[in-house]
Amino acid sequence: MSGNTFGKLLRLTTFGESHGTAIGGILEGFPAGVSIDTEAVQRALDRRKPGQSALTTERKESDTLQILSGVFEGVTLGTPIGFIIPNTNQNSKDYSALKDVYRPSHADYTWETKYGMRDHRGGGRSSARETASRVAGGAMAAHLIPDIRVTAFVRSVGPITFHTPYSELDLTQIDSNPIRCPDPKAAAAMEEYVLKLKEDGDSAGGIIECVITGVPAGWGEPVFDKLHAALGSAMLSINAVKGFEYGSGFAGTELKGSEHNDSFISVGKTATNHSGGIQGGISNGEDIYFRVAFKPIASIKSKQQTVDKKGEKVELQIEGRHDPTVLPRAIPIVEAMAQLTLADFMLRAKVNQI
Amino acid sequence: MSGNTFGKLLRLTTFGESHGTAIGGILEGFPAGVSIDTEAVQRALDRRKPGQSALTTERKESDTLQILSGVFEGVTLGTPIGFIIPNTNQNSKDYSALKDVYRPSHADYTWETKYGMRDHRGGGRSSARETASRVAGGAMAAHLIPDIRVTAFVRSVGPITFHTPYSELDLTQIDSNPIRCPDPKAAAAMEEYVLKLKEDGDSAGGIIECVITGVPAGWGEPVFDKLHAALGSAMLSINAVKGFEYGSGFAGTELKGSEHNDSFISVGKTATNHSGGIQGGISNGEDIYFRVAFKPIASIKSKQQTVDKKGEKVELQIEGRHDPTVLPRAIPIVEAMAQLTLADFMLRAKVNQI
Amino acid sequence: MSGNTFGKLLRLTTFGESHGTAIGGILEGFPAGVSIDTEAVQRALDRRKPGQSALTTERKESDTLQILSGVFEGVTLGTPIGFIIPNTNQNSKDYSALKDVYRPSHADYTWETKYGMRDHRGGGRSSARETASRVAGGAMAAHLIPDIRVTAFVRSVGPITFHTPYSELDLTQIDSNPIRCPDPKAAAAMEEYVLKLKEDGDSAGGIIECVITGVPAGWGEPVFDKLHAALGSAMLSINAVKGFEYGSGFAGTELKGSEHNDSFISVGKTATNHSGGIQGGISNGEDIYFRVAFKPIASIKSKQQTVDKKGEKVELQIEGRHDPTVLPRAIPIVEAMAQLTLADFMLRAKVNQI
Amino acid sequence: MSGNTFGKLLRLTTFGESHGTAIGGILEGFPAGVSIDTEAVQRALDRRKPGQSALTTERKESDTLQILSGVFEGVTLGTPIGFIIPNTNQNSKDYSALKDVYRPSHADYTWETKYGMRDHRGGGRSSARETASRVAGGAMAAHLIPDIRVTAFVRSVGPITFHTPYSELDLTQIDSNPIRCPDPKAAAAMEEYVLKLKEDGDSAGGIIECVITGVPAGWGEPVFDKLHAALGSAMLSINAVKGFEYGSGFAGTELKGSEHNDSFISVGKTATNHSGGIQGGISNGEDIYFRVAFKPIASIKSKQQTVDKKGEKVELQIEGRHDPTVLPRAIPIVEAMAQLTLADFMLRAKVNQI
Repeated sequence: MSGNTFGKLLRLTTFGESHGTAIGGILEGFPAGVSIDTEAVQRALDRRKPGQSALTTERKESDTLQILSGVFEGVTLGTPIGFIIPNTNQNSKDYSALKDVYRPSHADYTWETKYGMRDHRGGGRSSARETASRVAGGAMAAHLIPDIRVTAFVRSVGPITFHTPYSELDLTQIDSNPIRCPDPKAAAAMEEYVLKLKEDGDSAGGIIECVITGVPAGWGEPVFDKLHAALGSAMLSINAVKGFEYGSGFAGTELKGSEHNDSFISVGKTATNHSGGIQGGISNGEDIYFRVAFKPIASIKSKQQTVDKKGEKVELQIEGRHDPTVLPRAIPIVEAMAQLTLADFMLRAKVNQI
Repeated sequence: MSGNTFGKLLRLTTFGESHGTAIGGILEGFPAGVSIDTEAVQRALDRRKPGQSALTTERKESDTLQILSGVFEGVTLGTPIGFIIPNTNQNSKDYSALKDVYRPSHADYTWETKYGMRDHRGGGRSSARETASRVAGGAMAAHLIPDIRVTAFVRSVGPITFHTPYSELDLTQIDSNPIRCPDPKAAAAMEEYVLKLKEDGDSAGGIIECVITGVPAGWGEPVFDKLHAALGSAMLSINAVKGFEYGSGFAGTELKGSEHNDSFISVGKTATNHSGGIQGGISNGEDIYFRVAFKPIASIKSKQQTVDKKGEKVELQIEGRHDPTVLPRAIPIVEAMAQLTLADFMLRAKVNQI
Repeated sequence: MSGNTFGKLLRLTTFGESHGTAIGGILEGFPAGVSIDTEAVQRALDRRKPGQSALTTERKESDTLQILSGVFEGVTLGTPIGFIIPNTNQNSKDYSALKDVYRPSHADYTWETKYGMRDHRGGGRSSARETASRVAGGAMAAHLIPDIRVTAFVRSVGPITFHTPYSELDLTQIDSNPIRCPDPKAAAAMEEYVLKLKEDGDSAGGIIECVITGVPAGWGEPVFDKLHAALGSAMLSINAVKGFEYGSGFAGTELKGSEHNDSFISVGKTATNHSGGIQGGISNGEDIYFRVAFKPIASIKSKQQTVDKKGEKVELQIEGRHDPTVLPRAIPIVEAMAQLTLADFMLRAKVNQI
Repeated sequence: MSGNTFGKLLRLTTFGESHGTAIGGILEGFPAGVSIDTEAVQRALDRRKPGQSALTTERKESDTLQILSGVFEGVTLGTPIGFIIPNTNQNSKDYSALKDVYRPSHADYTWETKYGMRDHRGGGRSSARETASRVAGGAMAAHLIPDIRVTAFVRSVGPITFHTPYSELDLTQIDSNPIRCPDPKAAAAMEEYVLKLKEDGDSAGGIIECVITGVPAGWGEPVFDKLHAALGSAMLSINAVKGFEYGSGFAGTELKGSEHNDSFISVGKTATNHSGGIQGGISNGEDIYFRVAFKPIASIKSKQQTVDKKGEKVELQIEGRHDPTVLPRAIPIVEAMAQLTLADFMLRAKVNQI
């Protein structure tokens, strides 16, 4: 009930504060008999870790995964996969200055109201560090759906965007630049924009687009757990996310029904894909695609006005090495949450019919 | 697991096909000792029912709520509230023509793939008729959060929109026009647009905005069940919804951190509200506001190309009386899903601290 | 969380007070494509209904099942099966005398403490009438496990018992006498014992034994949801149950390991079955058998001492027609709870391996 | 769904195989602001660990708890408490001889059938080693219910028993002997019995009784999650348990209603306590007491007949140091499962009324 578990049949429960001993999780409901490529899981973590480029924080964290259970001789046992990622960086700094101050657009005030207290060191559990456990879980979940390809990329950074549809992009080029945008021209403009903001001690938001191919028709639950509702919830649970749209999304609201409807051209094949691969909450076999809005990161270097616990005004200057934008590091998180969602629905689909 | 239950502590499970004997549900986890205004619940249902204006379907359904349990002498017992809404209209028509045909952008094909069969009469359980049970549940849930006001209105219809912020609108005027838009000028344009589409046998989508006032700080679970993730999932589970954004939403991605951050001016009070009343997944006491994108209704009168089960091309003309837009009738559904979500989190907040 | 739902993948949620409009439930997670024999379901209900013999209450209730959804042309749709059983008897009596009095060993005091109020008419939701919904759900669940035979019988009534192992009994004779005991001699003694108690305005408890054949090896979850833990919980949730044991049970604690261990004689076949068909929480293919202890019914005609809400002493004489023993009518309830449990684990077993 | 989580609001999920790197768990839903006495938690673990006396296995395992998250400066944060207990003993032995053999009355065959494979080293996750995580979780849960005292003791070992009611025993003497029986004379006889069996390479079962004082009236959910059903399920989930009875239990089935009913002598106070502190599934404020049947341990030193995977007969002699009885080490496990159950229901009771 306290919301630390994701999924129904495949369930990831995460734990850990950013400056505790370790973060980690338990991936439960993973079927037996699946070979796990632990190096692939570590690679996903490496894609999320800090310090990858000038566009991300310079903090160095190794984020080394340790699997404690559930995998025996490289193969899943059907038992819970317990894992930890030690926090190697947790004592690097004195956080006492932030103990009594509410950082703007952070969770300091709300956590304190909810719990009566908080671990103020680096955000504690509200830190995006928690998402490393998600990336580990998602990369393991991906082994359950080997025929499905989940690919996320940066569609816009601040006001910089591009309009080529995903189907016309070379998605193999996403990691060829530090911003993780498959359009080289847009990528260059985005980088320049972010570096300028970094210089100014400011930060940028943006939009990540995600494409999923290979999902067979028939996955998703038709009422409250529609496939897109689950994907939406998964994405909205990522730190800094403000919106989610799939298929034709917000822009599609301007179309007429006669323009928007996807005509069938054969059984299960449609002429267009405004539906985004999902009809009535259930996959139809076409590509699933969606977009996720990320706000600009709240931790900025420039001075800000805020108050402390007593309500007294404070001029705040957040020290430390922060990401000027969350977007490149959020790519593997978006992918992981999609993989967890799809692997869960793959299992759920096993009991549709007798 | 089959996704017919909404909520964690306050749980609504719905049942029913559009052309079965009745639809209904069980609202479980409702605390004891709450007086239920059954007329208020019926009024919410009446706001959703068909036949209210020229903008909606002309079908007449009374949607009369029968509470079967859980309420004794007008007061909740703490036991499950079982209720039904008889389907009075279920034999009005011969649906056999649709039995073997996949309607474009409907759930016919996906349901059949998932379940191996479907109730083809009027969409069965994929019909928006199911949402009547949600409206009943939401209106009951509203009794648990009497100090909270949930208000939804139509922000756009097709390309017709208006830009006045919600805080400058007279929200008491929402029901003064059939489109349920509080701006009279925009409302008139929207009506005209919809009536024209109706004449053409076409349909319109649009955007509903929802404002929630009176939520205290401290509600929401910080990781996977962030308050906005739960609201997003709730909204995305409504038929025809394609997107959800809260606070600054997609537009906010273009701002810089220094522009977007909400400075504290006193404890729990911020100068701006780009956060949309939620920080780190937990309410901060400010207004919560969000927008929901609805695609144009898939049932249109004009002829469409599709295929039947054998894959043979069929020219389809859907008979019957369909809504040219879902928006006015979706207003109470959006409100109900928000009420269910908030009442659930109100209960969940009771166990934050010991 | 309020405990009105049974099962994980196949979920029965019940509602209803004994003297409300109706009781009923939703059976959710039932796979599509299963033909339902509604007459068989009604027969199970008839086996539980009052008024069957001189050993049970003389109240007449028809307990007629109405399925409202989830079944189309006799076959399950994969959608929730909503059903009701109207309360035909609910206004027969004035219950106001019991409004302020706590009946001994009933739930009056505890419900009132928990909820601050209660429906005092005939026990409200604490009445065993709620179990009619379980019987309906169980009889439907039985359609999912057609090769499994669940058979319960009366093993003892008060001090009257018999010791023939179930494997040597003719279980087709269970319904040949009103007490539902397959040993004719023991049955006669039990009947005599109960009729004597009835005359005295007293009541009897006893033990029901249940045998399950046809469960394949591999069902059950190994840690907290061991198959026998789920069966135990299911049985202990039935009104008046005080104990549960399976396989060798309490008596087996007196054996030595060398006597108790079940030697394998071939793969999956053991020489003895002290394990009761379950090893490590998972079925092994042998017969599952268990015993359930029922206390004597708390509603007795003879005078009793108790107190009212103010703590003042009251001499209570409960009017009305009560069962002198719960056992014969509990047989279909025990069977239904076992059927629900097994059908749930059958579904759960579908995701053990990929 | 895979049954590795216990509880609804307070949820313990455990992971770990006996011979993996570590076992551990996540305790989720623990409210914020509770001081944790980690030494008390370690003491509970020490009470369960091997090597405490001649009555238990001589294996030495330190079972050192490491709390990784959720506790900050000694106080709970409201976030998940992640913890591990390293397996220090995991490489001590060659288990390959057991790889292809099914040990009698162990879970080897059933796990292999369910999962298609198993970790054969020392039982893997079916080993009672998993219960160390439960003891850690239970000892932490106890901090949420400081006024409740849970006390378990050995009531019988094999045929050796004693009949003094718990209320006449000096429960402070339980740990004064290695068998953990508060009656010194019975304890001596039990010890002698177990030592004799140990010499013979055999094992003993027995009964543990548990008394819970200080539970206020009003805890428990009335239908499927009756307090005693939850306790029963908790106990039946412990390795080697074959039965559960509470209050008057199986023996109470022989009483008449007039003898069994607990007369109220004042509001909430009864003359007798056959109900075992629970009426209608809800606590009534009296002592809760129950008994748990443990079979003799399946691992015995003497030779046994069994088969291997190919069905060929094998004479098995299990090497290693095994407990001749599980009872003394099961005492803290029974207590932990009761503490977890009660703390969960304490939280659940917070939402009974508004």
